[in-house]
Amino acid sequence: MMMALETPGLLSLAAGFTDNKTLPVAEVRAAVDALAEQPGEPEYLQYGTNRGRPGLRRLLAERLVAMEPELASETELSAGMMVTNGSQQALYLAMQVLCDLGDIVLVDRPSYFVFLEMLAGLGVQVRSLPLDAAGRIDGAALRRLLIEMEARGETKRLKAVYFVSYFSNPSARSLDEGEKNAVADVLAERGMIIPVLEDAAYRDLYYRQPFPARSVLSLPAWRAFPKFYLATLTKSFATGLKVGYGFCSDRSWLDKMLHVKGHHDFGTTNLNQAVLEQVLSNGGFEAQLARIRPAYEAKMRSLHDTLVAGGLAQLGWRWAEPTGGLYLWLEAPHSLDTTMNSAFCHACVHEGVLYVPGDLCFGDAAPKHFVRLSFGVLGGEELVEAGRRFVAVAKRFG
Amino acid sequence: MMMALETPGLLSLAAGFTDNKTLPVAEVRAAVDALAEQPGEPEYLQYGTNRGRPGLRRLLAERLVAMEPELASETELSAGMMVTNGSQQALYLAMQVLCDLGDIVLVDRPSYFVFLEMLAGLGVQVRSLPLDAAGRIDGAALRRLLIEMEARGETKRLKAVYFVSYFSNPSARSLDEGEKNAVADVLAERGMIIPVLEDAAYRDLYYRQPFPARSVLSLPAWRAFPKFYLATLTKSFATGLKVGYGFCSDRSWLDKMLHVKGHHDFGTTNLNQAVLEQVLSNGGFEAQLARIRPAYEAKMRSLHDTLVAGGLAQLGWRWAEPTGGLYLWLEAPHSLDTTMNSAFCHACVHEGVLYVPGDLCFGDAAPKHFVRLSFGVLGGEELVEAGRRFVAVAKRFG
Repeated sequence: MMMALETPGLLSLAAGFTDNKTLPVAEVRAAVDALAEQPGEPEYLQYGTNRGRPGLRRLLAERLVAMEPELASETELSAGMMVTNGSQQALYLAMQVLCDLGDIVLVDRPSYFVFLEMLAGLGVQVRSLPLDAAGRIDGAALRRLLIEMEARGETKRLKAVYFVSYFSNPSARSLDEGEKNAVADVLAERGMIIPVLEDAAYRDLYYRQPFPARSVLSLPAWRAFPKFYLATLTKSFATGLKVGYGFCSDRSWLDKMLHVKGHHDFGTTNLNQAVLEQVLSNGGFEAQLARIRPAYEAKMRSLHDTLVAGGLAQLGWRWAEPTGGLYLWLEAPHSLDTTMNSAFCHACVHEGVLYVPGDLCFGDAAPKHFVRLSFGVLGGEELVEAGRRFVAVAKRFG
Repeated sequence: MMMALETPGLLSLAAGFTDNKTLPVAEVRAAVDALAEQPGEPEYLQYGTNRGRPGLRRLLAERLVAMEPELASETELSAGMMVTNGSQQALYLAMQVLCDLGDIVLVDRPSYFVFLEMLAGLGVQVRSLPLDAAGRIDGAALRRLLIEMEARGETKRLKAVYFVSYFSNPSARSLDEGEKNAVADVLAERGMIIPVLEDAAYRDLYYRQPFPARSVLSLPAWRAFPKFYLATLTKSFATGLKVGYGFCSDRSWLDKMLHVKGHHDFGTTNLNQAVLEQVLSNGGFEAQLARIRPAYEAKMRSLHDTLVAGGLAQLGWRWAEPTGGLYLWLEAPHSLDTTMNSAFCHACVHEGVLYVPGDLCFGDAAPKHFVRLSFGVLGGEELVEAGRRFVAVAKRFG
């Protein structure tokens, strides 16, 4: 796969990279200029603190309150905030301090495949949150799963629940409040007040309007649970700056993560944090979001329309048109194997188009007929051509 | 300690921060300007690769060959190079993949205290490399230690040897080739071909001339050992950019570290790497070194002279005048306790001066009468005043 990715002429609908054309060159340059012209010592070029710049943490807290006004009463919001090397480090730290070898984490279905790989690396097992026929989280089925786990003596090893709740990677789907509440209610009913990780990495990447669900931080059903809400500033701004963050409601959990972060790197790069602090303060961050939202919507529509026009739906493929995020999540006909070593996957590479096999995104009982297509990187004619190549292969296998 | 650090008026000879006055504001700004003006897509604002920018890794390999020409035959030098979030992450990854709970690492005496804390966090034990009366590594004593460890069945848990070999934190001492060779010879004699970590974080921070010892990468005595040579670009350039690196001679060890790095963050911030690539290419990096070397020498001498003029040596304190690095390493009279909760330490805080208690820098059998003073941050009158305060307390306890 890595070799294929470097072959010229290949078009990648696999890479989770973001759009190069809209990267905020001028904003980053202006932020560095402004920092250079500040009076006083250039502290942004010096070590920062392990937890992150106080000014940035305050801005992040304010931004969270703007999205969820109930949190205004949460006076400790910036005290519970930590800045990380991308949201990936936040995920790693959370799992490293919560889980030992053989422990179990509940995950959404499908889920973020880098998170699943990381859990595998830590020797942590996974159970998927069951879905109903409509594809929504099924509380009754979750109850049955937890009862089975109890019967097998597994629940003492159940250490956390994780979901990507806004325009998810890979499914582009968002969880509504009812789904999140169902998870909390069933866990509480079974006496399992375990830590919850809500991964909001794509929350800012809506096309027209924010998804209207509050996070677990505001939902009363989650009040008793230790909560870690994490996201990234740079997925939507510039991934080359890699600044993530998390708000943790539980002091002991947070302290353990900060302790390990002290050993990983004792603080996220200060320059990058200072640049983000600048653009959050001067409106550059929101301006960049305003620029990329229609750009991604246009790219989504371009790929979607290419698949439709090519007749993919008539071949039995199904997908929803997303309202945010960077992915189309395709369900192929059940009989079609789209996994990494399948004939279909090889045919796509041969045709010059790459995708992420969907089975990688399932924690357990992975179906073999899903596909993640990303329209993050490609644009214009290349994106259309990549879509055409994909449809051409699908037709051959249809 | 953290509270004390935030009290106004306190002068810190404890913090391992670097000099604010000489930070390369213009160089960083110019590098970002140059990146912004490059034709083509602004890839430096996009995700990079897990292993680090190819151009930067090539420059790092060239720089290493310039220091150790024997390595020119090492064609795989840039292939064995990985870029990390500061050298701290390189240390963490190396230990995470080599050691399990209860394993043992040999360390220099004294050693880098953040590394020792990290090992404690990972549940890894430590044995110090024994020193002779002159303070040099003692091969015969190391042989006796290894034989004792064999007798206790401990050597199967011995997983690595670590040392800070140039202008060390905390001792400012460098290891000569004879000392490094003695370690390799005794380990080889006992049949213990274990991984070696050479931490060269301060190698560039000499005042007048480089310390003339080659690294383990070039020394024939270490040829059979898996080697990880690690350092940082930003300790000497700008710590706020946090770009470290390591060259690993062992493909399997390197691959394991890269695998875990993929889970930590899947790549060090690309912008920061691109800035370093710029300043390494255009001479800005070496110019900055040329600026700070005499600046740190002058600060070292200012603090050293203040201690001498105050009469600290007459009170029985001993220290060497360093030829590089950021620290004075003081041995107090044996009867004086300088640990964190000692009367001496409290008196220093009360007098308004902070230091790092030396016992924190020993992996085992820590003596209580050492002190690390850093002249990294303070300068001018503040540095002199901090030195005077320290001597005033020493006199009271003398």
